[in-house]
Amino acid sequence: MKIYDREGTPNAARIRIVLAEKGLDDQVEFVTVDLIAADQKQPGFLAKNPIGKTPLLELDDGFILSESTAITEYLDNLDGKPRLTGRTPREKATIHMMQRRVEQLVMEPVDDFFHYGTTGLGPALAPWRMPEWAGRKEWGERRGAQAVRGMPYFDALLRTQPFVAGDSFSMADITLWAALAFARGAGLTVDPALTALAEWDARVAELPAVTNRSGQAFRPEDMTRRG
Amino acid sequence: MKIYDREGTPNAARIRIVLAEKGLDDQVEFVTVDLIAADQKQPGFLAKNPIGKTPLLELDDGFILSESTAITEYLDNLDGKPRLTGRTPREKATIHMMQRRVEQLVMEPVDDFFHYGTTGLGPALAPWRMPEWAGRKEWGERRGAQAVRGMPYFDALLRTQPFVAGDSFSMADITLWAALAFARGAGLTVDPALTALAEWDARVAELPAVTNRSGQAFRPEDMTRRG
Repeated sequence: MKIYDREGTPNAARIRIVLAEKGLDDQVEFVTVDLIAADQKQPGFLAKNPIGKTPLLELDDGFILSESTAITEYLDNLDGKPRLTGRTPREKATIHMMQRRVEQLVMEPVDDFFHYGTTGLGPALAPWRMPEWAGRKEWGERRGAQAVRGMPYFDALLRTQPFVAGDSFSMADITLWAALAFARGAGLTVDPALTALAEWDARVAELPAVTNRSGQAFRPEDMTRRG
Repeated sequence: MKIYDREGTPNAARIRIVLAEKGLDDQVEFVTVDLIAADQKQPGFLAKNPIGKTPLLELDDGFILSESTAITEYLDNLDGKPRLTGRTPREKATIHMMQRRVEQLVMEPVDDFFHYGTTGLGPALAPWRMPEWAGRKEWGERRGAQAVRGMPYFDALLRTQPFVAGDSFSMADITLWAALAFARGAGLTVDPALTALAEWDARVAELPAVTNRSGQAFRPEDMTRRG
């Protein structure tokens, strides 16, 4: 199978952690998509994913999947032993609930902050980011503030349980871990007073599937330079 | 089990369609949350869901779930025969991919349009909707325009397959159906030139699980009046 992505982005990190966790690393060919050049918005890529976003999974028989959550569901269920997305109805539902909370409280606000409140990935992508809107930067900054306000919820949660969805490492932890790395990379501050969140963050960073990918933390300055 | 929601809202409709589709209607006690009075933001409700949103599922043993996607996962898997969220890895992943596309392209932009671009649910909820931001209305209107621009993707898709995730009715259809009803209720136009979308919309409206709940289409004027 092929994964189309750009190493160093938060969603690429998510899928690479899933692949490592499921022992599927060596079955994947990575195809780099030049996000800085807006290749994901060009006809060649749009023919595979009309939404124009990475990562994207393509199997040898032509089956295509986009959306990190969906790719995670697929990879986790391949061996019949889903442990990142849950086995029982309660586990599945709890993980999906926490996944949505991470998206809404942190990941999506950080993404908006990065793309609207900062220079984001640069000029080639500007046409897809409402360049005509005078209020875009203020909106991006408001979204950044929302992301920071969303973090204490997870700090409080992690004072009561070891992982975001309960006792086990799951898709929701991967998304939050990538979102916090993204937040830092984009220039937001993760308040050090959130000590349970910091302890969890350090603990996740040391998991084998994450350690293997320790170069994955999002660094927008690197991306801009390489672009 | 109890469902805390407000009949007539798009997410309440989603869960009620799932309950009907799975034959679980008669096992549920509905508890009305007065969204117009902002009861979902008060301590009593926040103790059950810190995010302050409906719908919320509470089992007799105290297990609590929020987020419509997660509640759907739970209810669909209870009988061991998931048909709304998929059986095989490919089905599960495809449904979750389309679910995310519906959320990002239509449901979330419509929600933002309703709450920021219109009077939304009224003054009691205003403190949670950035009242100090001069640009809020313009942002809401931009989100409404985004929702309208997101609809042709589903029209094109539904020219090639009968349902949003393929050959079978799924969670992704329920979310899109509720999102279009929400869009109309909030004052957005679903372009009648999107004939495949219109045909699908009419077909879904006639499904038994949806027909039983035909009073579910979102009508914000009704909510404001009743509030």
